[in-house]
Amino acid sequence: MTNSLSMLVADLYPQLQAWRRDFHRYAESGWFEFRTATLVAEELDRLGYRLQLGREVIKAEARMGLPSPAELEAQEQRARNQGALEKWLPHFSGGFAGIVATLDTGRPGPTIAYRVDMDALDLNELLEPEHLPFREGFASCNSGMMHACGHDGHTTIGLGLAHVFKSLESQLRGTVKLIFQPAEEGTRGAKSMVEAGVVDDVDFFTAVHIGTGVPAGELVCGSDSFMATSKLDVTFRGVASHAGAKPEDGRNALLAAAQAALGLYAIPRHSEGSSRINVGVLQAGTGRNVIADRAFMKVETRGATNEINAFVYQQALNAIEGAAKMHGVACDIALMGAAQSSKPTQPWVDYIRRQAQQITELASVVDRREQAAGSEDATYMMERVKSHGGQASYVIFGTELSAGHHNEKFDFNEQVMAVAVKTLASLALNLPTFGSGA
Amino acid sequence: MTNSLSMLVADLYPQLQAWRRDFHRYAESGWFEFRTATLVAEELDRLGYRLQLGREVIKAEARMGLPSPAELEAQEQRARNQGALEKWLPHFSGGFAGIVATLDTGRPGPTIAYRVDMDALDLNELLEPEHLPFREGFASCNSGMMHACGHDGHTTIGLGLAHVFKSLESQLRGTVKLIFQPAEEGTRGAKSMVEAGVVDDVDFFTAVHIGTGVPAGELVCGSDSFMATSKLDVTFRGVASHAGAKPEDGRNALLAAAQAALGLYAIPRHSEGSSRINVGVLQAGTGRNVIADRAFMKVETRGATNEINAFVYQQALNAIEGAAKMHGVACDIALMGAAQSSKPTQPWVDYIRRQAQQITELASVVDRREQAAGSEDATYMMERVKSHGGQASYVIFGTELSAGHHNEKFDFNEQVMAVAVKTLASLALNLPTFGSGA
Amino acid sequence: MTNSLSMLVADLYPQLQAWRRDFHRYAESGWFEFRTATLVAEELDRLGYRLQLGREVIKAEARMGLPSPAELEAQEQRARNQGALEKWLPHFSGGFAGIVATLDTGRPGPTIAYRVDMDALDLNELLEPEHLPFREGFASCNSGMMHACGHDGHTTIGLGLAHVFKSLESQLRGTVKLIFQPAEEGTRGAKSMVEAGVVDDVDFFTAVHIGTGVPAGELVCGSDSFMATSKLDVTFRGVASHAGAKPEDGRNALLAAAQAALGLYAIPRHSEGSSRINVGVLQAGTGRNVIADRAFMKVETRGATNEINAFVYQQALNAIEGAAKMHGVACDIALMGAAQSSKPTQPWVDYIRRQAQQITELASVVDRREQAAGSEDATYMMERVKSHGGQASYVIFGTELSAGHHNEKFDFNEQVMAVAVKTLASLALNLPTFGSGA
Amino acid sequence: MTNSLSMLVADLYPQLQAWRRDFHRYAESGWFEFRTATLVAEELDRLGYRLQLGREVIKAEARMGLPSPAELEAQEQRARNQGALEKWLPHFSGGFAGIVATLDTGRPGPTIAYRVDMDALDLNELLEPEHLPFREGFASCNSGMMHACGHDGHTTIGLGLAHVFKSLESQLRGTVKLIFQPAEEGTRGAKSMVEAGVVDDVDFFTAVHIGTGVPAGELVCGSDSFMATSKLDVTFRGVASHAGAKPEDGRNALLAAAQAALGLYAIPRHSEGSSRINVGVLQAGTGRNVIADRAFMKVETRGATNEINAFVYQQALNAIEGAAKMHGVACDIALMGAAQSSKPTQPWVDYIRRQAQQITELASVVDRREQAAGSEDATYMMERVKSHGGQASYVIFGTELSAGHHNEKFDFNEQVMAVAVKTLASLALNLPTFGSGA
Repeated sequence: MTNSLSMLVADLYPQLQAWRRDFHRYAESGWFEFRTATLVAEELDRLGYRLQLGREVIKAEARMGLPSPAELEAQEQRARNQGALEKWLPHFSGGFAGIVATLDTGRPGPTIAYRVDMDALDLNELLEPEHLPFREGFASCNSGMMHACGHDGHTTIGLGLAHVFKSLESQLRGTVKLIFQPAEEGTRGAKSMVEAGVVDDVDFFTAVHIGTGVPAGELVCGSDSFMATSKLDVTFRGVASHAGAKPEDGRNALLAAAQAALGLYAIPRHSEGSSRINVGVLQAGTGRNVIADRAFMKVETRGATNEINAFVYQQALNAIEGAAKMHGVACDIALMGAAQSSKPTQPWVDYIRRQAQQITELASVVDRREQAAGSEDATYMMERVKSHGGQASYVIFGTELSAGHHNEKFDFNEQVMAVAVKTLASLALNLPTFGSGA
Repeated sequence: MTNSLSMLVADLYPQLQAWRRDFHRYAESGWFEFRTATLVAEELDRLGYRLQLGREVIKAEARMGLPSPAELEAQEQRARNQGALEKWLPHFSGGFAGIVATLDTGRPGPTIAYRVDMDALDLNELLEPEHLPFREGFASCNSGMMHACGHDGHTTIGLGLAHVFKSLESQLRGTVKLIFQPAEEGTRGAKSMVEAGVVDDVDFFTAVHIGTGVPAGELVCGSDSFMATSKLDVTFRGVASHAGAKPEDGRNALLAAAQAALGLYAIPRHSEGSSRINVGVLQAGTGRNVIADRAFMKVETRGATNEINAFVYQQALNAIEGAAKMHGVACDIALMGAAQSSKPTQPWVDYIRRQAQQITELASVVDRREQAAGSEDATYMMERVKSHGGQASYVIFGTELSAGHHNEKFDFNEQVMAVAVKTLASLALNLPTFGSGA
Repeated sequence: MTNSLSMLVADLYPQLQAWRRDFHRYAESGWFEFRTATLVAEELDRLGYRLQLGREVIKAEARMGLPSPAELEAQEQRARNQGALEKWLPHFSGGFAGIVATLDTGRPGPTIAYRVDMDALDLNELLEPEHLPFREGFASCNSGMMHACGHDGHTTIGLGLAHVFKSLESQLRGTVKLIFQPAEEGTRGAKSMVEAGVVDDVDFFTAVHIGTGVPAGELVCGSDSFMATSKLDVTFRGVASHAGAKPEDGRNALLAAAQAALGLYAIPRHSEGSSRINVGVLQAGTGRNVIADRAFMKVETRGATNEINAFVYQQALNAIEGAAKMHGVACDIALMGAAQSSKPTQPWVDYIRRQAQQITELASVVDRREQAAGSEDATYMMERVKSHGGQASYVIFGTELSAGHHNEKFDFNEQVMAVAVKTLASLALNLPTFGSGA
Repeated sequence: MTNSLSMLVADLYPQLQAWRRDFHRYAESGWFEFRTATLVAEELDRLGYRLQLGREVIKAEARMGLPSPAELEAQEQRARNQGALEKWLPHFSGGFAGIVATLDTGRPGPTIAYRVDMDALDLNELLEPEHLPFREGFASCNSGMMHACGHDGHTTIGLGLAHVFKSLESQLRGTVKLIFQPAEEGTRGAKSMVEAGVVDDVDFFTAVHIGTGVPAGELVCGSDSFMATSKLDVTFRGVASHAGAKPEDGRNALLAAAQAALGLYAIPRHSEGSSRINVGVLQAGTGRNVIADRAFMKVETRGATNEINAFVYQQALNAIEGAAKMHGVACDIALMGAAQSSKPTQPWVDYIRRQAQQITELASVVDRREQAAGSEDATYMMERVKSHGGQASYVIFGTELSAGHHNEKFDFNEQVMAVAVKTLASLALNLPTFGSGA
């Protein structure tokens, strides 16, 4: 079996590379994955998967950090111009570019699911010869959008798994689900898929990432350091007035924001674990001699546990609303993204480790790594799966990177996609051995 | 008439000096004027004035900045020990040391009123030979209480007027009222007398001060630079916790106060006139390693007009309450004092000027002076008198000072009391000439 | 004489209107007045004035708030495309669009000077039929630049005076100087002309404005309410880091700016007169999860006197530099503009009043008006003229406005230009009567 | 041996209790341990130990948080009145109440040292019958000083060890040192003893505490959760002025402190471990209408490692100095206390565990416990011992407490002292078995 899997993936590799480079070239930021999703849907449909699309797998009101309708429409038009397939586009229109592809073997058995994400970052890709994607002609043609986190690779891994499972369907039991998620950046999309119920029937769940500083040839079977997080956009609305002539008529939104920023950073540390607060962006005012009537802040909270993050989040609301009151201005707080803290289930991590140890390309297989404190919204899916007794983990395939994630020079060694497909496929193919310790 | 007045006052001078030195020696701070008031009442009663005392002339709930019942009781006992007269003390018990003495001539005519204040400052008097009151044995024997603003002189002037009016009663028409007010410092007492109605029947009102930087021999007939003011005591109440072990359990009152202080000083300037804000005192916390559960601030607002002060005051409430909300603490705001802005009525200023020009001791008689921005709660009385069509002014008799007001070395040339009695008495004696331009 | 002046101006009116509309259509913001200046120079040269241009009348290092070389070059090219005259352009290249035109009569007599300004505002003009300049085809064709303060009218008045003085040269004595200043908005340009010496020989100086809320038909002969001001651009430069992974590696420029803003608004009031402080713009940070490494603020200080403004300015430097130190970031403070407080000289105001009373179009002639606290850099010229004993004033011609200054719908009744030319010309023509009281 | 040890300690128990109750009754706060130290010295001298006293074991300039000379003198007089022994007092005069007692067996062998502390807390003890020390007549007779942390017990344990070692001297090898430290509260004293060299020759070091929430009958052999800390007293010195009359003349120390407080709490979290910051006390200003010319803050920083604390400390200096600069005031920063983070050496913890397992009174023997984040200056001694290759640990003997540490009702079960003496003595008695695993 392993032999046939290896050969299958080897044959598939040129296709994997072609897909990845196409997705990279037409990079689409969160909630704008219109072109990507239609191509993915077309391929999955061609392979014979049962598809659930758009509103079937995304609960509209649970989406966070959604762009404006005008932006969504403009980007849909852009996608159409770049080859999005009209056949599928209506399903995704308006910020619904999510897909769940299901393969029901007809044989009794559990449901195993994989989650990959499809969105790019709001970043301009480096257009210089030193950068391989530019040199080889697949750098992003979309200004301000770049696959600088490897999600193009993740989407490709999802398609690779779809191929493999279809080819080896006879060796599978139960049901396989492939989840293609939009808007992971900013932790905006997963919650809406969870609330649409896409993991409610899942027994074994695995989310996938590549890179993140893990060395090439290493697999982290159960990444466990994700912090719970909340992303807030805050707008203070005051009253403008001439700063020289009528200072008393103003209601100073800039001052409220400054006061809020200080209050936010003063949120107490928590004795039970790490916490974070950041005001990453503050923009206020229009002219030197005008009392600023508007201020905008991008804020994020984090906590080592959901409880710690909830503590910081609640304090942040107080700080913001109190600062608004101090200066007599109104404030709007919009939740733009959120993720949870989630630990993998140990039996599933153990199983993944055992399977991975069979993969010759993996020189090192570890349970966890000390990692910098990041956040991931696949944690919503993990927590949901765990809540009904399922197994869940988050795996990271190490690979060479040309630059750090979220950098304009980011690129990865595409071989990692083949390794990931092979390893992840083996999880489903050998699932009957779960729990056997073999 | 002027001759007899001059002789009367000359005869009275030793008595004036004796009274002043007695009041100075037993200095009593605001709402504690128990001994002073009983001596004043005794003298006025002896002279035959009709007296209204305590709750008759002070509306209890309109008093501001009242000390605690325990402090009031202790000071009353102290006064008793220092010779307060038991006959009158019950009237003043509990913070009601106000007196209105009325002389009704029985002849038709308007009501003319004078206001003097009786309270000392919370200050330790200098006990060194260089300081005349110490050298001559009448420095304050009450620790933390000192007549460093001249109110001992004002009270004396009030008694001097009582003597003169009684002696020259046959030359008077209408009614004369002498108002002895407690707790002018901190602008705490006048409002409670106004609300008790003590100036509701007054046609001509004059409040008196000595010193304030006006040169000896000069009279300011219509001081007009008092700023409206509000005095606030603010208490933030949070929750203590160990700063190392459980920082998240605290609700930080110190931080709320710090944030409030910055918000208060950031209250906008006003285009229509001067404004002021000050946090003069901030005390917070109990121990280095404890999240502060309590913070206390003494705040004051000022404005060139009542409207400007009201603007600053309202903004201050916002700043304080918003800061409390920011840090999840409660706050109490107590109004400890208030005064209004008030302009003298010009006809009365003109009349005072004409009378003063007859007083040989006054080398200079002016309507107004550029003065530093202070506050005075006689403004409440002035505004009330003006509101029913009366005339009102605030006069300042210049004199030599040994040091500035509110200084531990403050003292004044006692001769100014005689000049003041003579000048102020002439206002009533010549009242029939008001409006004649003569 | 007056008759011939009236007829002259009446004949000139169509030309005034044409000039004004041309300047309005090709509105050029401060330091970008390339096209305007070449047309002005051409006309003055044609009339026979002796011209001093560019670096002759503008001291390079005394210019404030200069745009970048790249912007200056781009705008010069834009001006060239819009008909700037190559003959004069080199003089103004690089931000030197200032002109002084001199008419020396050869007859003995004093030097009288007028100052007009030529720059537009950074504003998009309303392009709707309700707005007359759009309806009649002379709305600004330059995006982000609009004559919304009337300087197009001022420049035209300057050219009108040039015509009149040339026509009536025989009636003049001494020397007339017409000063065309760049970059008055933001109070950036006057100081550089003063430091180049352009008013060092001036005996009588008059600066001109139209509108500002003064009613049509009224002249304010000696506007005296300008506040001294300083305009600061502040940049805080810190170090970025990932807010989740490495918060300790950041140096937070956003926090420094927030702290500075609070410190700036907390600068004390001044007992000797009005002061102002404003942070009109604050922009900081790049992404929600990044410690902000850069923050930018636009700040302005004002004071009723130069001394008060200097006090606020010095305190502002402390607040900014201290806030930078607090958060371990660097800061750059650039002076982008400045103006002084200046009072007109009363004899000159008296003279202007007497002349204006002869102008039939002026229904009301007043010395001064209570005005909102604005700033003007002609004050630098006034102070310099006064420093060597000259007379100086600032006059305002009232007119109907379609909207307030600095509004996208601003427009004025063009008739005011004729009234201004007539009135201002009479100042020079009747100068021998100065001081005669006639 | 164990039997004789048990009997010895059983015999000693009444004496232990008597000592402890005497120390408790005459509680002496940090640097004031005059009486306690003389009694300890007398007893150690009587037993025949070689004593090093005062300046021999305390480096004057390394003391932190020293009271004023006047306070030291007053407390020395108080101690004298309460029975301090004149024979020893001169050694400790001026804040030098430290003792090192040495027993050199003359036989070759390593040096083993124990550290106990002697100071009380600044706290009023509860004087009610519900509180055993009051009921049994040994509550503190010193107002504002109370043994509410058990150091009276620690001192007693030190004396108990002295007795035991002298009795069993023949069973010992090498050298035993007993270190009696002043001023542990506020982490003020240990550094001065380390810098005097008292542990430079120590091979095995053990610091001792009782209580801290550890259950009765349990020993923690290697407490490892102490955070490094710095204690700062900050004084801002500005200029007072009348807030109404001359606000511009003030330099506002209260504002500087408020700004500093916000800056301090905004110090970033650290990705490598816990950190803490607290402003526990802020006191500023003298009067409501005066610009505050003085502000005082008690600040502390903490970090899970010395590096993290150093990071927070450096940031704190920036915040304080920058805030002073912002408001034009001076600031003084005094280091009032400091402690390090220190991990026990595992071989020594292993050895202690093995010895403790032989003590029948100890039902539970553990290496470490999750503890709240506190600080301890014995860490200075541990780090010094480790720096020259020695073994070091910090042990905690569990006991019943009547209330938490630092509470006015604090008391402990005195039996713990006997258990501690027995256990700690066995460490020296069995030292030859160190490393044998037996």
